[in-house]
Amino acid sequence: MSHNTFGHLFRVTTWGESHGPALGATVDGCPPGVEVEAEAIQRWLDRRKPGQSKHTTQRKEADAVEILSGVFEGRSTGTPIQLMIRNTDQRSKDYGKIAETFRPGHADITYWQKYGIRDYRGGGRSSARETAARVAAGGVARAALTALAPKLEITGYMVGMGELEIDRSRFDWNEIGRNDFWCPDAQAAGAFAEHLDWLRRDDHNSVGATIECVARGVPVGLGAPVYGKLDTDLAAAMMSINAVKGVEIGEGMQAARLTGRDNADEITMGPNGPVYSSNHAGGILGGISTGQDVVVRFAVKPTSSILSERRTITKSGEETTIVTKGRHDPCVGIRAVPVAEAMMACVLLDHLLRHRGQVGDAGGRIG
Amino acid sequence: MSHNTFGHLFRVTTWGESHGPALGATVDGCPPGVEVEAEAIQRWLDRRKPGQSKHTTQRKEADAVEILSGVFEGRSTGTPIQLMIRNTDQRSKDYGKIAETFRPGHADITYWQKYGIRDYRGGGRSSARETAARVAAGGVARAALTALAPKLEITGYMVGMGELEIDRSRFDWNEIGRNDFWCPDAQAAGAFAEHLDWLRRDDHNSVGATIECVARGVPVGLGAPVYGKLDTDLAAAMMSINAVKGVEIGEGMQAARLTGRDNADEITMGPNGPVYSSNHAGGILGGISTGQDVVVRFAVKPTSSILSERRTITKSGEETTIVTKGRHDPCVGIRAVPVAEAMMACVLLDHLLRHRGQVGDAGGRIG
Amino acid sequence: MSHNTFGHLFRVTTWGESHGPALGATVDGCPPGVEVEAEAIQRWLDRRKPGQSKHTTQRKEADAVEILSGVFEGRSTGTPIQLMIRNTDQRSKDYGKIAETFRPGHADITYWQKYGIRDYRGGGRSSARETAARVAAGGVARAALTALAPKLEITGYMVGMGELEIDRSRFDWNEIGRNDFWCPDAQAAGAFAEHLDWLRRDDHNSVGATIECVARGVPVGLGAPVYGKLDTDLAAAMMSINAVKGVEIGEGMQAARLTGRDNADEITMGPNGPVYSSNHAGGILGGISTGQDVVVRFAVKPTSSILSERRTITKSGEETTIVTKGRHDPCVGIRAVPVAEAMMACVLLDHLLRHRGQVGDAGGRIG
Amino acid sequence: MSHNTFGHLFRVTTWGESHGPALGATVDGCPPGVEVEAEAIQRWLDRRKPGQSKHTTQRKEADAVEILSGVFEGRSTGTPIQLMIRNTDQRSKDYGKIAETFRPGHADITYWQKYGIRDYRGGGRSSARETAARVAAGGVARAALTALAPKLEITGYMVGMGELEIDRSRFDWNEIGRNDFWCPDAQAAGAFAEHLDWLRRDDHNSVGATIECVARGVPVGLGAPVYGKLDTDLAAAMMSINAVKGVEIGEGMQAARLTGRDNADEITMGPNGPVYSSNHAGGILGGISTGQDVVVRFAVKPTSSILSERRTITKSGEETTIVTKGRHDPCVGIRAVPVAEAMMACVLLDHLLRHRGQVGDAGGRIG
Repeated sequence: MSHNTFGHLFRVTTWGESHGPALGATVDGCPPGVEVEAEAIQRWLDRRKPGQSKHTTQRKEADAVEILSGVFEGRSTGTPIQLMIRNTDQRSKDYGKIAETFRPGHADITYWQKYGIRDYRGGGRSSARETAARVAAGGVARAALTALAPKLEITGYMVGMGELEIDRSRFDWNEIGRNDFWCPDAQAAGAFAEHLDWLRRDDHNSVGATIECVARGVPVGLGAPVYGKLDTDLAAAMMSINAVKGVEIGEGMQAARLTGRDNADEITMGPNGPVYSSNHAGGILGGISTGQDVVVRFAVKPTSSILSERRTITKSGEETTIVTKGRHDPCVGIRAVPVAEAMMACVLLDHLLRHRGQVGDAGGRIG
Repeated sequence: MSHNTFGHLFRVTTWGESHGPALGATVDGCPPGVEVEAEAIQRWLDRRKPGQSKHTTQRKEADAVEILSGVFEGRSTGTPIQLMIRNTDQRSKDYGKIAETFRPGHADITYWQKYGIRDYRGGGRSSARETAARVAAGGVARAALTALAPKLEITGYMVGMGELEIDRSRFDWNEIGRNDFWCPDAQAAGAFAEHLDWLRRDDHNSVGATIECVARGVPVGLGAPVYGKLDTDLAAAMMSINAVKGVEIGEGMQAARLTGRDNADEITMGPNGPVYSSNHAGGILGGISTGQDVVVRFAVKPTSSILSERRTITKSGEETTIVTKGRHDPCVGIRAVPVAEAMMACVLLDHLLRHRGQVGDAGGRIG
Repeated sequence: MSHNTFGHLFRVTTWGESHGPALGATVDGCPPGVEVEAEAIQRWLDRRKPGQSKHTTQRKEADAVEILSGVFEGRSTGTPIQLMIRNTDQRSKDYGKIAETFRPGHADITYWQKYGIRDYRGGGRSSARETAARVAAGGVARAALTALAPKLEITGYMVGMGELEIDRSRFDWNEIGRNDFWCPDAQAAGAFAEHLDWLRRDDHNSVGATIECVARGVPVGLGAPVYGKLDTDLAAAMMSINAVKGVEIGEGMQAARLTGRDNADEITMGPNGPVYSSNHAGGILGGISTGQDVVVRFAVKPTSSILSERRTITKSGEETTIVTKGRHDPCVGIRAVPVAEAMMACVLLDHLLRHRGQVGDAGGRIG
Repeated sequence: MSHNTFGHLFRVTTWGESHGPALGATVDGCPPGVEVEAEAIQRWLDRRKPGQSKHTTQRKEADAVEILSGVFEGRSTGTPIQLMIRNTDQRSKDYGKIAETFRPGHADITYWQKYGIRDYRGGGRSSARETAARVAAGGVARAALTALAPKLEITGYMVGMGELEIDRSRFDWNEIGRNDFWCPDAQAAGAFAEHLDWLRRDDHNSVGATIECVARGVPVGLGAPVYGKLDTDLAAAMMSINAVKGVEIGEGMQAARLTGRDNADEITMGPNGPVYSSNHAGGILGGISTGQDVVVRFAVKPTSSILSERRTITKSGEETTIVTKGRHDPCVGIRAVPVAEAMMACVLLDHLLRHRGQVGDAGGRIG
């Protein structure tokens, strides 16, 4: 990862600010011949789009994607694919005070201190709007994965919001798309909704969330020791999403509490190869995929832009307080779900291409 | 991060296997004129060296570093610095069965499935011995940081082992170097020792650990949105260490539980610039350092090589059980402490150089 | 250089096809605070624009650049700058036969063989239209260089066309902008014009050219041994331009004919440092700039799209002949001049930033 | 290419100084399962070894390579391969005056000005000894190519020295290994020998040379538009070799003199696919290999270290003269031949792996 680009063979560079004319992703390294259609990418974007429920920002953006290059007669040509999304609902007037005053917990102050200039309108480059470009790029990655690894399925969902958590015994894959929280537990989703309503309307507050993202049907052998590990790249991908403060693979931070006997996923032989008794490893051993589900989890901090008053300073160094009006997500974790799926798709495709390039069919068989 | 290299302007490539003739680090991009001495690097290596207490592997390695290039009359010349460590205590006979049988929870099986060949002696490239090369490279990074950011101090320590945790009210920086666990709480260190003795001798087991690593005196402005974030690179650096399963910045996974009001680090104006009321952010906002302490935490899973019997399979697909003899760390987290410090030094130096290159002195002032 | 990106700290990714909706450049790593204006970039683009004289293609393109991101109130913010140019005069009907038949000497056949799909309209990605994006990116590089190295001047010009060459004794910097060939020798420019008229109209042919590009006022110390040499990156930059078949630094291929005594640029001491008796080296020693003029020269092959009949084959393997109608440059070398300047600007800025990052002010003084 | 590393999937980082303890290459990305043996690499190194005839430096170095990692039971494992060569015949006393005085035409002065420190012993990092590491890495690349592209053959040879040139009508592939100049024309080799004897002994001078390097049996489709072109990477690879001042593909600089009609390689259909009437393109169209011979040519300037007196300055800025004693190649072009072959092998392997990763078997058929 460097600056605004991630990936090695499948490389995505995102560009654009919250209130500039447009934002997008320059996608290089998509294999040729892949069906890439604006409609399909749009469907992914629509999942992340703001203003779809009362639980997300009320900014209205069509997030309509245009494919400007790299696709000919509906298929990728092997050249860079430029995906552009025009901004349409900027309302720059909402952000007057923010030009001079730093929101606590926000990138306002570090952008200023680093660069000596910042596009303060809507957070500029640090806005979560940047993630629309990731989702668009992820749409291309998914299209390529459909061709190269047709059994692969990537699904993200919310497992916790504030102190509330899902009950894993009620986990239902089909429930995920049915509520406003991408939550696999209908009952928890109800509790999330109630809690968030109160936080937003009555408490003028925001809240963090825990998201899990699972890839099923991952080919064995993706990832390269020791710095190009699959988990290393997944951790980087998730940590690069706005407001993420922690990333876990498999057992994650809880692995510290286990003993070696408990943590070992024992191996037996099934009809199609190795079978594991459990998946503490989250589908990755030594940085390389085992063929089990790849499980990533991450924490999204609460939005720093809230209607409650906080102490802060101005550019000229004066102490003041700030109440952030404007249209903000009370729980950015919700819209982080499709973003995480997109990042996972990009990372897996990149590793699939790298594996194919460097290893080809040299892998070892068992049995 | 790609394959065996990490960093952009300060680039480290490690090489070598556990039981090969040698291992080392090729360090490119050290600024010229930095005092680089084998003795100083050796002091860092000695902290990670095996066999220093009963709590780590009993393999005896001097881990003596040789500087083969890039240093002239005690100072770096701007050319690649090659750091080599000869392996001396390999005892390959210990590892007979491992050639054919995969240890559960170990990279044995994925290396085989990916590459169709693996150096099974001592885990080959997947051995924690690889981290000696990281520590050596970190010694170069520290030397450069001493010149470029003299106030910077990086300190790692253990905050939890299994179910045991330190009591933050007893935190003592000076205690860290005094016990076998790099633990800032003397009482907890005693409990760790007792627990680990029992696990190793009586329970034939191993255990995970939680490590925290703090950088004090970090200049404001390191890190680059949106994929070259400082926290992104720190997460990748820590996740790339063997056996790490989760990484946190500041509040980490707990950030999901907080509200925006609680999580905001309020800002006031001090005599030398902004002062923060707290450090939930872990010293990083929008991917860029604030000047507060940069706080990283990670979980190390328990060693998979244990004396207890576990079910597994062989290369030919037969089901069997395995008891791993040989010399293994019952808690690899202990020796992960100097490794994490080294990784943090490398990441911070890399970002310092990138910042200097791209931003120079263009940063904004406050007040 | 990788795929569609070049540069390390100043990174340019170009995208777009000849007859797609748009093309452009994603520019990452421009230092913050640089004055970047569409008008200034447009002036560079206008130098490369087609249809400005009878000696270039008659395709009419405004080549109007839009800045979509990375610039706020007229200055760069340190975030990616997206430069987009809409295609307006595509006339796809001109290219019917080209869908099935490969032009000899053109990328048609290799794109097909490599990718199994190609955008044949106007050559798709292999069209010289891609170089418009380079010139736009070069405009950003020039703006940054104006701030960071104000004495630096980059000038390209044509020194030969077919068998015709300039007479160096008539070299006049001021003449370069006055004729249709960026030629510093007015008399040679006249001969070029006459020759090209005949070639195009009567001979239905095209012709190659030799271009030279000089940077004056280059700071000492740019370039890094041994693979990040300044001349290595300049060679790659020029060779990446369409139709370029050879690149020279200083004496270039003639260096093979010289003796060591003749080739040495002897050094004396002037009031401001070292003075060289000559510049056989082309301003670069050991890959690092000396402070003398950096001199690059390259050969552009004749356009392969000509009105004369050539033997070739179709996709289905049938032998046939082809006469390429449509609007093509009889001497693509002319429009390569502003492209080469842009590439040189990008390479020099990239090296300036890398030098600043890794070396800072550690350089050695003389005297 | 960045600093001391080249390649993308097959990455080579060289390290080491002329008079340090050792030098070598860190080779990352060799596919697994390739037969890599020290003896085979040694055979390539022996071709470059100094002191083999009176026409090269009389420094005696065994150039014995040690494989320190990445190879297990004679085959590559997919992990980094460390190749080390100990320096044995340094004689640092020869280089006294060079510590303070800059040789005209040498990197002495720019290294000093850039870094403020330089290992002046034998030229340090700028010495042609660095190319031993390239040849060793090239040995690994050749081993991998033998497995992946068994028909590929890479051969370098000298086509000119000073004013002398070979006669292409006497070109004999078998002659290349029979004389001290890797010259395919026995008669020219004799003239080269006579001329070089006189230059060295009587004229105390050195001379430049032109080298050509040809790859036969290159698969169709290697290279990626528009900055990852095969010719771009070959140009960079050759220009990165010490003393190289110009690089040509196919017709090279002469392409400027041709018309489109003459330059077009006409295409007909042969039993195994397209057949070209000529190879002006040097086997590359649009940056992608055509399957014809890939032809690269480059000029090596004369050694700057000569026994004739030249004017120069010292570090303290005093004007003086210098006569370089010590052991130097009167024509470094000779030993550049195996180096160029090694670079070509590395570039071709890298592109083969990239192609396999990103394109797989998606390429288009003809007929």
